[in-house]
Amino acid sequence: MVSDSSPAKVPCSERGSSIIDPLLTGLRSGDRRALAKAITLIESSREDHRERAEILLAQALPYTGASLRLGISGVPGVGKSTFIEALGLMLVAQGHRVAVLAIDPSSRIHGGSILGDKTRMEQLASHPAAFIRPSPSSGTLGGVAARTREAVLLVESAGFNIVIVETVGVGQSETAVADLTDLFVLLQLPHAGDDLQAMKRGVMEWADLIVINKSDLDPEAAALAQSQIAMAQRPTHLGQAPDVLRLSALRGEGLHDFWDRVQHQAAALRATGRFDQRRQEQWRAWMWDLIHARLMAKFCAHPAVHEALRPIENAVVEGQMLPTEAVKKLMRLFEPSSPSTH
Amino acid sequence: MVSDSSPAKVPCSERGSSIIDPLLTGLRSGDRRALAKAITLIESSREDHRERAEILLAQALPYTGASLRLGISGVPGVGKSTFIEALGLMLVAQGHRVAVLAIDPSSRIHGGSILGDKTRMEQLASHPAAFIRPSPSSGTLGGVAARTREAVLLVESAGFNIVIVETVGVGQSETAVADLTDLFVLLQLPHAGDDLQAMKRGVMEWADLIVINKSDLDPEAAALAQSQIAMAQRPTHLGQAPDVLRLSALRGEGLHDFWDRVQHQAAALRATGRFDQRRQEQWRAWMWDLIHARLMAKFCAHPAVHEALRPIENAVVEGQMLPTEAVKKLMRLFEPSSPSTH
Repeated sequence: MVSDSSPAKVPCSERGSSIIDPLLTGLRSGDRRALAKAITLIESSREDHRERAEILLAQALPYTGASLRLGISGVPGVGKSTFIEALGLMLVAQGHRVAVLAIDPSSRIHGGSILGDKTRMEQLASHPAAFIRPSPSSGTLGGVAARTREAVLLVESAGFNIVIVETVGVGQSETAVADLTDLFVLLQLPHAGDDLQAMKRGVMEWADLIVINKSDLDPEAAALAQSQIAMAQRPTHLGQAPDVLRLSALRGEGLHDFWDRVQHQAAALRATGRFDQRRQEQWRAWMWDLIHARLMAKFCAHPAVHEALRPIENAVVEGQMLPTEAVKKLMRLFEPSSPSTH
Repeated sequence: MVSDSSPAKVPCSERGSSIIDPLLTGLRSGDRRALAKAITLIESSREDHRERAEILLAQALPYTGASLRLGISGVPGVGKSTFIEALGLMLVAQGHRVAVLAIDPSSRIHGGSILGDKTRMEQLASHPAAFIRPSPSSGTLGGVAARTREAVLLVESAGFNIVIVETVGVGQSETAVADLTDLFVLLQLPHAGDDLQAMKRGVMEWADLIVINKSDLDPEAAALAQSQIAMAQRPTHLGQAPDVLRLSALRGEGLHDFWDRVQHQAAALRATGRFDQRRQEQWRAWMWDLIHARLMAKFCAHPAVHEALRPIENAVVEGQMLPTEAVKKLMRLFEPSSPSTH
């Protein structure tokens, strides 16, 4: 629930407003309830909530950016929850503060959630230095990803220095996660066979680290998969071939090694400037996503377009007019009205 | 190559132009070279080619729509080419004319092609009643899908009554294919284990038919997978649970049964009106995709936006301005100029 302690009237929607949102004060002081409320606020689609969310985010901006953002993906059954819980517990024991967010490509048809189970990661969830937030339960993948981007900023401003963004390995959610994290980790099963090769130019291309989990189940298959994947790799978008390693999250084997590699990769990226470069690209992509959304809203609200849209759309839907022709007509109507024609 | 037999000057870009493009005459008379040229034309991004392509498509429109459009997906290694070739040969032997198009989510980084191998399906490719066209080798997934939608119309106007659109099971290309076909078929390996369950609410949701290929390799695993998938199914977007069947394309086992099911499903969909309904939705989606693209182009070309874009984008990229704030500023500049302010 969004607190009703919101400023009664927001005097100015510009960044730098002198009235500091009490939620920010809460965030900065480590109040977990304030953090939960702030995330609920940014997830709200109510217009007044949205306005307040934007001011809050602008005020939080100077306190963001210092965390390591880690994306983790893999098909259901690969052991993501076990892996994240084991990793998270190791990290909080080392003094880190760990936030876990999720992007769940909820069914476009059934509205279900693959990741939404709140009972997962119970041990980590109850740790004072950890914060776990399931994916927003509604909205398009794009909308969910946008909310998650904002949630990353909020947890950073609340002092979490490691942010894990989790997603399942279906559809396009991996690229959404890769697009908002610093390092992208792909979990694999030891005996995926064909699929490993299959993926090598798809999702694997986005991976900075490939982890063969459940390696204890079939050590031989895991070793084979490791060498196959390692051979198949080419430099990623970050300019280096991804590490491939085996571990067993359930047994806690290989987690320290995993974390060493993460730190090593992050350090290497920072040293070459690629770390910052990637974050810059992510800010840019976020901006363009928003532009897309706003343009569409503006188009639909344009009076002449609004009036002509239904009949033209109907002709298209009935197969009587090609979409290309329809769009040409509609775009002509969308032209800004010039004074001489009125 | 696009023929230089194009009308020297296109007098009018409206549909219904009285000058019939010679390519259409070729298409309609079953000239395969004309079809190949027409597809090359629609794949071209040259502006004059694009104009001619749109007229050609508008002229071809009355002759389209009569085929059954079948989408086929599955990870590399699942045996798509073998399956499509075996199916295609069976269908041409029955008197059908079969066109095979491909949507290949070419690597966003390396520009490679997973499906582009022209030596595939050699027997089918050389059959006079078949036409095989690899995916456009460049462009975004959206662009490739748009070209494929147009190619479907062209092969239909050339008299092909079965159009197979193939894609690999990575990324979002399955939904692109499902969005332009009447029935979507997902190929699976018999021993995919966890992954089968994994996919059941992702891509499987789009499948009207699930085929466990290579069932001869491990009949027991295939039977188990079949029953697991069948149990896990829920009604799809077409309102019925997908059929799950086993076959071996390599041995030619199960293909007749597969085709019976396809025909049965298509008939059922036609009887309930869902067949047409789905095509209507596809026309609509195509229109909106185009609107998206045109709006973005218009935005970027707007003088005030163009001037302000770089500094604002730089502030965003440097983390000094939130994308939300930046977009608010840019959208204000994009407002149609009102006479009173000049």
